[in-house]
Formats: sequence, C-alpha cells, structure tokens
Amino acid sequence: MAISEAEAKTARYRMVSRFANEVSTVIDVAGVKIGEGYFPVISGPCSVEGEEQVIAIAKSIKASGAKILRGGAFKPRTSPYDFQGMQAEGLELLSLAKRETGLPIVSEIMNQSQIELFHDVDIVQIGARNMQNFDLLKAVGGIKQPVLLKRGLANTIEEFLMSAEYIVASGNPNVILCERGIRTFESMTRNTLDLSAVILLKQMSHLPVIADPSHAAGIRSLVAPLAGAILAVGADGIMIETHNDPANALCDGAQSLDLEQFADLMKDMKKRAEFEGKVI
Amino acid sequence: MAISEAEAKTARYRMVSRFANEVSTVIDVAGVKIGEGYFPVISGPCSVEGEEQVIAIAKSIKASGAKILRGGAFKPRTSPYDFQGMQAEGLELLSLAKRETGLPIVSEIMNQSQIELFHDVDIVQIGARNMQNFDLLKAVGGIKQPVLLKRGLANTIEEFLMSAEYIVASGNPNVILCERGIRTFESMTRNTLDLSAVILLKQMSHLPVIADPSHAAGIRSLVAPLAGAILAVGADGIMIETHNDPANALCDGAQSLDLEQFADLMKDMKKRAEFEGKVI
Amino acid sequence: MAISEAEAKTARYRMVSRFANEVSTVIDVAGVKIGEGYFPVISGPCSVEGEEQVIAIAKSIKASGAKILRGGAFKPRTSPYDFQGMQAEGLELLSLAKRETGLPIVSEIMNQSQIELFHDVDIVQIGARNMQNFDLLKAVGGIKQPVLLKRGLANTIEEFLMSAEYIVASGNPNVILCERGIRTFESMTRNTLDLSAVILLKQMSHLPVIADPSHAAGIRSLVAPLAGAILAVGADGIMIETHNDPANALCDGAQSLDLEQFADLMKDMKKRAEFEGKVI
Amino acid sequence: MAISEAEAKTARYRMVSRFANEVSTVIDVAGVKIGEGYFPVISGPCSVEGEEQVIAIAKSIKASGAKILRGGAFKPRTSPYDFQGMQAEGLELLSLAKRETGLPIVSEIMNQSQIELFHDVDIVQIGARNMQNFDLLKAVGGIKQPVLLKRGLANTIEEFLMSAEYIVASGNPNVILCERGIRTFESMTRNTLDLSAVILLKQMSHLPVIADPSHAAGIRSLVAPLAGAILAVGADGIMIETHNDPANALCDGAQSLDLEQFADLMKDMKKRAEFEGKVI
Repeated sequence: MAISEAEAKTARYRMVSRFANEVSTVIDVAGVKIGEGYFPVISGPCSVEGEEQVIAIAKSIKASGAKILRGGAFKPRTSPYDFQGMQAEGLELLSLAKRETGLPIVSEIMNQSQIELFHDVDIVQIGARNMQNFDLLKAVGGIKQPVLLKRGLANTIEEFLMSAEYIVASGNPNVILCERGIRTFESMTRNTLDLSAVILLKQMSHLPVIADPSHAAGIRSLVAPLAGAILAVGADGIMIETHNDPANALCDGAQSLDLEQFADLMKDMKKRAEFEGKVI
Repeated sequence: MAISEAEAKTARYRMVSRFANEVSTVIDVAGVKIGEGYFPVISGPCSVEGEEQVIAIAKSIKASGAKILRGGAFKPRTSPYDFQGMQAEGLELLSLAKRETGLPIVSEIMNQSQIELFHDVDIVQIGARNMQNFDLLKAVGGIKQPVLLKRGLANTIEEFLMSAEYIVASGNPNVILCERGIRTFESMTRNTLDLSAVILLKQMSHLPVIADPSHAAGIRSLVAPLAGAILAVGADGIMIETHNDPANALCDGAQSLDLEQFADLMKDMKKRAEFEGKVI
Repeated sequence: MAISEAEAKTARYRMVSRFANEVSTVIDVAGVKIGEGYFPVISGPCSVEGEEQVIAIAKSIKASGAKILRGGAFKPRTSPYDFQGMQAEGLELLSLAKRETGLPIVSEIMNQSQIELFHDVDIVQIGARNMQNFDLLKAVGGIKQPVLLKRGLANTIEEFLMSAEYIVASGNPNVILCERGIRTFESMTRNTLDLSAVILLKQMSHLPVIADPSHAAGIRSLVAPLAGAILAVGADGIMIETHNDPANALCDGAQSLDLEQFADLMKDMKKRAEFEGKVI
Repeated sequence: MAISEAEAKTARYRMVSRFANEVSTVIDVAGVKIGEGYFPVISGPCSVEGEEQVIAIAKSIKASGAKILRGGAFKPRTSPYDFQGMQAEGLELLSLAKRETGLPIVSEIMNQSQIELFHDVDIVQIGARNMQNFDLLKAVGGIKQPVLLKRGLANTIEEFLMSAEYIVASGNPNVILCERGIRTFESMTRNTLDLSAVILLKQMSHLPVIADPSHAAGIRSLVAPLAGAILAVGADGIMIETHNDPANALCDGAQSLDLEQFADLMKDMKKRAEFEGKVI
C-alpha cells in the first residue's frame, strides 16, 4: 500500500482511496473492461418481464453496441403492491439472454440469502436504497464477482466511498461506483444528477466510476444529452434503461429509451467516445 | 375494513391508512402501552458497551421514569473502521438489564438472519438506513414482536407509510413510526427534525408515531426543548439517548444526555405530559 | 461590548451574537414587548384585500388576544400574473385598522424606495426571498422601526445571523428573527419548519426569535399543533395567517385559519403560555 | 404569439415559454451572439480589485478566446464584514477594460437605484440571491441591455422561468438564463450543478441558457470537466471565474482558474465546440 501510516489511521476509506493505488483499477467482466480508457455501455430493462422481452432487448442493444446487459429480477419497490419482479425466474431469463448474446449480465441483489442465486450474474448490483445496508455490503465482500454500488439518494460522496470500503475491506476489490442522482428540492426531475461527484470520486478513489442518467432524470428526453455530459466529465461507463415497448413497461417506462432511440444514442456516443479517446 | 373499494385499489398504503382504522392502534409492549394517551419515554445508550454500563443506565433511567430501555448491539456505522457494536453479546447484556430492571428492551436489527437472536427483544427496530430494505421489512412482518420503524434520511412521508405497509401486509400489525430528522442543507444540526411529519403521520395513519430528538439534533442542548415540542405536537412517545459517561461514549456522545440531565428532563416532561393529558 | 478582541475579529455576526450581549434584547413595539418572557401573537391576512376585510380581521384577532396585526400590501409573488397586492392603498388600510383597533402593524417591504411609504408601519418585514438582498438590509438599518427578518428558504442559521448583522451594523439594533420553514425534498408540506434553528438562534444570539407555522406548513390543520411546539421550544412569539373567508382569499387560503379557528387556537395558546410562564 | 388562448391563460411563464416562440432567441451583445449555435465564453474575476488586475485579466482571457468580460463591482457578500466590492469605481475600471480590449462587459446589479451607473455595462446580471427580488426584476425589465439572470440556490426550474417572465413582461425580451448550482445536502462541493435543468430550460423556453461551473463547484479542479459537460448538454454559453493571482483573490480564489489554466481550458473548449458544431 502506498499510503503513509498517518493517512491509514485517519482515512475512513483507506483502501478505496487514491492514496492506496496510484494506478486506477480496471475491472474485467468476462472480457469487458471497465476503467481507464474503457467506457462500456450497460443497458437493458428496469425489470425482466418475460423471455421474449429480454431476448429482444438483449439482441438489439448488442447490435447497437452495448457491452453489458442489465435487468431487474428482484425489484426494490416503494409500495408492497407494486410489481416486485420475476425474482429467481428473472435471473434464469437473464442467463438465457447471456447465452444467446454473449453479453455479461448485471442484476440487483436485495439480501445476502440470494447470493447463491446470483452465481451466473457477472456483476452484482447494490441499489441506492441499500447503499448503507452494511451487512449486505459485507456479504458481497465475500463473492467473486465485481459489485456495482449505486450512490444512495441522500448520501454524501464520502459516505459513498465508505460503503465501497466495506466491500473492499471484506475481501472484494472489484467495486464499480455508480452516481445515479441525489434527492433535492427540485421535483421536475426524479433526482438531480451530480456530475461533480463523478469527477471528485475519480480524483479521490482508484475505483471505476460510472453514471446512470435514466434514474437520475426520470425523463426520456434528458437521457441522451446527459449521456454526452457523463462521457465528457471522464466517467468510466454508463448505464441506460431501454425497453422494447416503454409505454407498457412494468416499471420506469417514462425514462426508458426504446430500442431505436438507443441505437441512435449509441451512434452519437461512439463519435463522442472517439473524440474523448475512449473505447466504448 | 372501513375503506371503500376505490380507496383500497388506489391506496399504496391501504392497511396503515387512517381509512383502514378509525380507532388509533395502541401497542402493548410487556405491559407498556404506546399510542392514544400513552406517551412512554424510551431511553438508553447508542451502543451497549458492557455490563456495568448498561445496568447502570437502565437502573437510572427507570428511576427517572423511562418505560423502555434502548441499546444498540448491531450498529450500522458509516465506516467499516468505526465500532460495530457488541453484537450478540450486546443483546445478552440487554436481556440481563431487562431482568434486573423489568424494563422491556428495544434494539436495532440489521438483517433477517438475526431474527432468532432477537427472541428476547421486546421491540425490534429498523434503522433509518434500512427503511427501504424491503426484504428486511417483509421479514419482520413475520415476527411476533412490535417493530419500531425509523424514517429514512431522505424519505418522504408517503414512502415512510409504504414501508410500514410492507410490514403490516406481511402479517405484523404492530408498527411504531419514528421521525428522527431528515437530511437537508443545514449542517449545524445533524439532521432537521420534521415535526410536521409527526402531525401528518398521525392524521394519515392509525399507527402510533414517536420521535427521536437525539439523532435529529446531534447536539445535547437541543434535546430537552425538542422533547417538549414533540409532546406538544401530539406524538405518542419519544426516544432519547442517554449515557453514564457521554464524554467517553463509543458513539454519539455529543447528543447523549448524562443520567442527571435525563432525570431533570423527565421531571419537566412529567409536568408537560400532565398538562397535555398524557400518561408518561 | 462583552466580546474579546479575538472573538470580534473572527465573528462574522459579532453584534447580534450572544457574546455581544448577555442580556437578551427585548423589543418594544408601541407598548407590545417581544422577547424574554413576552410571547406576542402576530396575526392577519396574507394580503390586505379591502377595508371591510382588514378591519373585520383586525377586530376579531384583537378580541381573541393577538397583539400585532400583519397584512401584506406589497406581495412578492412567484409569477408576474399572480395578484401583486394592493400596494400603497394596502398600507393605508392597515393604518386605518391600526387606528380602529390600536393594534400595531407589520407589513413586508420589497425595496428601499418604499421606506417613506412605511412611515406608519410599526414593524417592517423583510421576506424570505429578500433575506440576502443586502442593499435592502442596509437600507432598513437606517430606519427607526424594528425589522422582522424572515429566514430564507435555503439559508443556514449562520447566514441568517449574518443578514441580521447587516441591519444591526447599519444602525438598527431592533431585529426580530423569524423561522418560517426551509425548502427540503419533502413536498407534502410547503416547507419544513426547523425548530432546532429556533433553539440554536436563541443560544447563539441575543435577538428575539419568533416562528411562522402557516408558511412553514402550508396546511391549515398543522398550524395549531406547530404553534404549541413553537411555544415549547422557547420562541419569543409567533406569526399566524388568518382570514375572514379563507376559501376566497387572494393568496395562501389553504394555510389560513378562519377567525373562529384562530379564537380557539388562542384559548389553547393562553393556557400553554401560562404553563410556560410566558406573557402572551 | 404562437400560443393558444388556453395555454396563455394557464401559463405563468407564457412569454418565455417555448410555446411563445418556436424560434430560439439569439441575443446580440455588441456583436457577440448568445444562443442557437453560438457558445460564447464569459470570463473574469469574482471582484474587480484594481486597474492593473482587471486589465491584465481582460487582455489575457481575450487572447485565449473569451468573448465577454465579467467582473463584480457591487458584491453580495454573506457577512457585512466581507469585502463589498469596489462599487462605482469598479464599474469604471470595467469600462476601461472594455475600451482597452473591445470585450463587452457583464456585472451584477444589486438594486434598482444603480441602473444609471450601469449605463456602460453591456449585460446586467441579477445574482442568485436576487432571483426573486421581484422589484429588481421589474426594474431591469425597463432597461435596454440584456439581463443575465442566475438561478436561485433553492429555486425550481419553474420558479426560474417565472422570474424571467417578470423581466420580459416588464418590457425587456433579452434575458439569458444561467444555471449555477443548487443547494443540496452535499457539502464537498459549494453547490450541485444541475445539468438536467439546462436541458429542461432549453426544452421549455426559447431563451438562451448558459451555466457557471465555478460557483457550482467551488473547486478549481472541477471547472474544466464540468465545462465540457455544459457544452455537451447543449448550453448556449459558459461563465468561468479567472484571476491573475487566485491565491490572493479578494473573493472566490479557490474556484478561480489562473490565466494559464484558462488558456489551456480554452484550447480544449475550442476542440469541443468544433465537435459539437458550435461557434465558441
């Protein structure tokens, strides 16, 4: 470790700190790299809703240039009467989509007893509402897959790093930080995307940092311009919600791009990535 | 149920809603009542630190008039390097204090695998950071003890009610709502106590509502005046952190009252409760 | 001055600081005292709408026990198409109500060119949106009447004290601080009343501190319980919106008490004031 | 006007709305265009501190490619003991810098009595703290120069548009909207830059929209990456604080670029503007 004793004593996020590693961490997910120079696009539906849906989306986003498939199987929903996801069956459908397309998959885990079910999931996601579910953080510190950790709705940058530290200190060095908007007084957008946080996280930590404009905005027409901004500030990747039929999506339809809109966005993002010198 | 079919369909927190019960819920915890006319004071240390400490505090607060002992065994701490609580041993010491004093006990659970360990805990607490840990909410829906649910740092009143609904819809009707301050731009206090929320929760739901001025303020000198305000707005109880030696507390010392300060506060609160027509 | 040279150098609100005066400031407004032991109730309509309205309200609230009449003549409205107040004519009607009832009057000033028009207004109010209109603060530092300064929607306690310092440093020692709710993510209430701020302001400054539950809540049914809480935390007064016909008020009807509701509230507040040892 | 009667009745910001003009407004400031395709860079010091300083900065930023010079003469400062600006003398020095370099100038007005003093200022700025100083908004509705209106620290997008409406409805159609960060719980940055607001403002209004990364971030190292993001989301310009000696600046030194850093940033921004098809 490259940090001094004094730094080690004071730092409450000493292992994820930039002091710990001068070299930025690059994470390899089944051949897809995240970090320093690589800018993979993660895409897919809020919820897996059925075989036809997830396969159609996976094939289309792959053709458009996405490198990783996202899909919710266990869904953290505000009300118990909202659709709770297809659960274990949803994970099986994601595995099927992975076999069909070759895309690695990412899905959200909601409690530590589900770890075994996630054996075929390439990146295990901790959602914003569980960012300070410390027992879950410790538990995913023991798995072999990388963890995608989303920033909590009202958590500071330092709290975010300390939650990442829980995972790394528990044995899993492969954490991807994801800014997804914070809760503010502004109600026109779902949340307020905090791009300064992306920049600061890159300065303060060696971990890769991505952003999610879909959940941040909650409005489809903001996703493409925010995507360009995310690339411009130096993020290491992006996560974008897509759906083959947004108007009838079981969750988050208003913020999901349809597959054609995603294809158009990817054309634009490829030019932008080339301009920035990044591999998309 | 007293609600119309239309209301039942639309309400995303239909069981905890005032529409569901015209009569407010009164919860009985080993003979201590919470709700409509009863205003129990819950007190004790942030963390159980040892036998001598917890017994000394329990005896003193009982003598001062507290009705329920609180104490943290499993601690949700921002950094993995902060003190994480005495864990199972902490729960045993709370049980010991309960036998010594007769006070029922409340302690925070951090994940569903701990439920068995909490068999002797009279009220199981879900902390602010787990308010939207929906799997944990469902799990405590299956236990026999009442659940004390704290409002999340950035959660709206409606989200709070929907989290309570998760517990009730999972089979446990005995939920106590606890306002403990929300996160705002003001940094002089730890959080901003939202007393309007206490009033609205009482209007919107039949569940008992208490408040925690210690975590809201984060400053000792604010606790007593806020306690009077909590009683004045019609809350059903209060939770106050105390310590026999705040200067050396392992957590939250700055907001803990010492035992003499607590005794003084209780003298004042008894007069206030009498004025309000409440049983303290 | 009781402050040390070091304190004087560092304090950016040195004259309003508790260090400056050990004795709390009591302000006398045409015989009505505000501060230390006196808890006057200020009431009246959001906007002066006509002679009949303002006289009817003034007589009724006086009979109920209010000590000061409030009424808006120049209204800071979000849209230029909202009712902007009766302006100079509104001030004349307030003066008329003052002569009819003997109640001193308070009204909001919006720019320094209006100072002459406010010659008969007993307390000049600076609204929340002008809390950092520093030129206006300096200007009211030169008037002879006390100034009621409202906290800005997103201003910290320290910024609030520094705005008061502008007035005092410009020559007017009689400033009344008014907490009226801050803007947070919670949208069910208009703002979030910050009672911790009232307590801290009393600890940090010698100036009188009042609170406005009507603007804080924006909902009529919250006003009475919040009023009790405001008294309980040690505030020096309260400002409550009333209207003789809230359903048809030109502004803020949803948060205004009707005259009967105000009379009932005052009966309760008198008992509470007696309990607290305050002169209402 | 292209809006329907129904829209005209309901819209509280009808004249600045996109419904009012399908064609985006392009503002011409002494030959410098702002809007649709033009992306001028406004730069200069927080405060004018002296002739040598402002001339040195003006010449250097012009050479680097800035199109408009900013400089504070009347400064809205939190404490009355902070430096309040060089005032009228500051405006004279800005005029001098304008004659020396040919750059049009922008400076903040703090009250309507200063309008005459601003006769040689090409763009009159309304600061964030005065965004809802409605009398000042009406007053600048009567001047001939364009107005640069900054978003308030806790104001919503709709409130921002309504403040612009005050100016336009008072007779001045040339308003430039400036997003400069909002106040949130995050304390590591001075404010949180809300780029979604820039996108929404462009969708909802025909007025030009620029952004200020310096005040939003409060940290020098964030300015360049945020500048790229501001260009990427489709803003019509940018305002960046610069100083010839940031370490000794009388205000906001921590967020100011030195002249060499600004030159480097401009080289980067020219490439980015070319990529976006904008004239910088």
